[in-house]
Amino acid sequence: MTGHVRPLEWTGGRLRLLDQRLLPARVEHVELERWQDVVAAIQSMQVRGAPAIGVAGAYGLALAARALSHLDPSAYHESLNAAADELAAARPTAVNLPWAVARALRAAEAAATPADAAERILREAQAIEAEDLRANMAIGANGASLLPHAARVLTHCNTGSLATAGYGTALGVVRTAWEQGKLAGVVATETRPLLQGARLTAWELAQDGIPTTLIVDSAAASVLRDGGIAAVIVGADRIAANGDVANKIGTYGLAVLAKAHNVPFYVAAPSSTVDVDTPTGSAITVEQRDPSEVAAPDGVDVSNPAFDVTPADLVTAIITERGVFTPPYAESLRSGAANA
Amino acid sequence: MTGHVRPLEWTGGRLRLLDQRLLPARVEHVELERWQDVVAAIQSMQVRGAPAIGVAGAYGLALAARALSHLDPSAYHESLNAAADELAAARPTAVNLPWAVARALRAAEAAATPADAAERILREAQAIEAEDLRANMAIGANGASLLPHAARVLTHCNTGSLATAGYGTALGVVRTAWEQGKLAGVVATETRPLLQGARLTAWELAQDGIPTTLIVDSAAASVLRDGGIAAVIVGADRIAANGDVANKIGTYGLAVLAKAHNVPFYVAAPSSTVDVDTPTGSAITVEQRDPSEVAAPDGVDVSNPAFDVTPADLVTAIITERGVFTPPYAESLRSGAANA
Repeated sequence: MTGHVRPLEWTGGRLRLLDQRLLPARVEHVELERWQDVVAAIQSMQVRGAPAIGVAGAYGLALAARALSHLDPSAYHESLNAAADELAAARPTAVNLPWAVARALRAAEAAATPADAAERILREAQAIEAEDLRANMAIGANGASLLPHAARVLTHCNTGSLATAGYGTALGVVRTAWEQGKLAGVVATETRPLLQGARLTAWELAQDGIPTTLIVDSAAASVLRDGGIAAVIVGADRIAANGDVANKIGTYGLAVLAKAHNVPFYVAAPSSTVDVDTPTGSAITVEQRDPSEVAAPDGVDVSNPAFDVTPADLVTAIITERGVFTPPYAESLRSGAANA
Repeated sequence: MTGHVRPLEWTGGRLRLLDQRLLPARVEHVELERWQDVVAAIQSMQVRGAPAIGVAGAYGLALAARALSHLDPSAYHESLNAAADELAAARPTAVNLPWAVARALRAAEAAATPADAAERILREAQAIEAEDLRANMAIGANGASLLPHAARVLTHCNTGSLATAGYGTALGVVRTAWEQGKLAGVVATETRPLLQGARLTAWELAQDGIPTTLIVDSAAASVLRDGGIAAVIVGADRIAANGDVANKIGTYGLAVLAKAHNVPFYVAAPSSTVDVDTPTGSAITVEQRDPSEVAAPDGVDVSNPAFDVTPADLVTAIITERGVFTPPYAESLRSGAANA
């Protein structure tokens, strides 16, 4: 299997993160012992990508459970719940984060002692990580089946090994298509302001030897018009029950442009990204990040939303590990009735 | 009149340029004595913006005419024509550059001596500069009349004083609307890869006290969807006879998005930008600039077109100093039949 850069690893009782802010110039790791440091790492985007921050959040709860296990049971539960709340809220848009933290917390419910709870939470975090990797492999296979021979695809932001437990969601589809010999190449947008496309996606694809062309975000329109793009494939941070998709800022524009040029627009994500408790995209909180990410002269305001919401009617299909979901999403996502 | 930063000035027998590559961090000028240095300054984008490089090219020819005036008449004409060709071709997309150089060269046709020719070319360059400034003021008035009260407009790249002989084209409209009290504010895209929106437009507007919000290019789609944008206003590097518009990369995508959200899409440019010899946009050469402008990891290709072409059917109106032109452009542009 290609593409198994690891964004995080549980080792020696610590969470070891590849510091994604420094890539590709420097490959450096940080080792976190405190759950509060996991919150900070998620907020600062040392680790990023919806599935990856979910896994990191679950490991963060394992660190919290261990650190709090000297407390009496009542104080322990209160403090652990508070840590879970803070981990789950480290960033607001990706549902994978509160989903994974809540799942890890639930795993401790049957524990006899705080030490037992800590052990159960750690095992659950490891299970979440392993399941995400398996899900990505299945997403890859399900998505690759949608692509024609010699496909050239356009992708946005980073949805690869670095954004997940490994392999990737949209990049998982790219990798599987490449392994099947049906991919001609990838056009990657640089993805301002933090350049995840240029720094992370292009770097991952180059390591796998997949032919990649990097463009500025605003060049996507003419690339789509000039033809030769078989599909736009992106990831997701949260998919509402009706199929609306929150993803990296710029995704919505790509979806409009894909439709205008009759190019299929696919969203690839694990089913943990589908949030049945969010009825539509309008209920999704879009994170505004620090204005300093976008350099502006004095006296100029900056609006720096990290995400936007793409309405379901612009999404050709949603690719999960359970199969390929098609409109109407309100029905297909609820029933789990995938086509593949 | 606000907004009269000067991108260039003929002074002391030299062409003095504000080095726009360094803005806004540093305000530095270069003084050019050799026409070859004007070619280099246009290519490196020390001076940029279609009208501004036209004026610079004409002054470059004035420098060439003076430098070559010791030659005998036959050698003089041959060398001057060669210099004109090189100046006109310094960048391929903006028609203002070959237009202004050709106009300056024609002014020398009736000259009795090389010294007389040099003087005539200089006077013509000065006339082109003065006319461009006047045209921008008229563009501002013509365009502002299209905007509703308390308009909030979105613009791309830099079309201000720095891109012209002063005042600006799309930013001329913004400035006039502001002076008339009918502008609420501007949303400026940062305009990758060279960040003319962030570095130049935002800087110019802040100097004029015009409320400005800077966004990454890919955030334009959600800004247009979320409402409150009365118009998208951009400049142009070349307008074909049928109304197709070559302008900064990303313009085409903005035009598609504006149409998708029922927002008027205006192009503001002096009539010298209309190239009746170019029948449609497909005949326009789009400059590919150096890949190093877009940072890519090793092993990754870069496609770095500086411009794209917006089809006429996405353009609500073309605003020139002669008035406001509306579809069908093949007729209105040819007949000069503006509506205002």
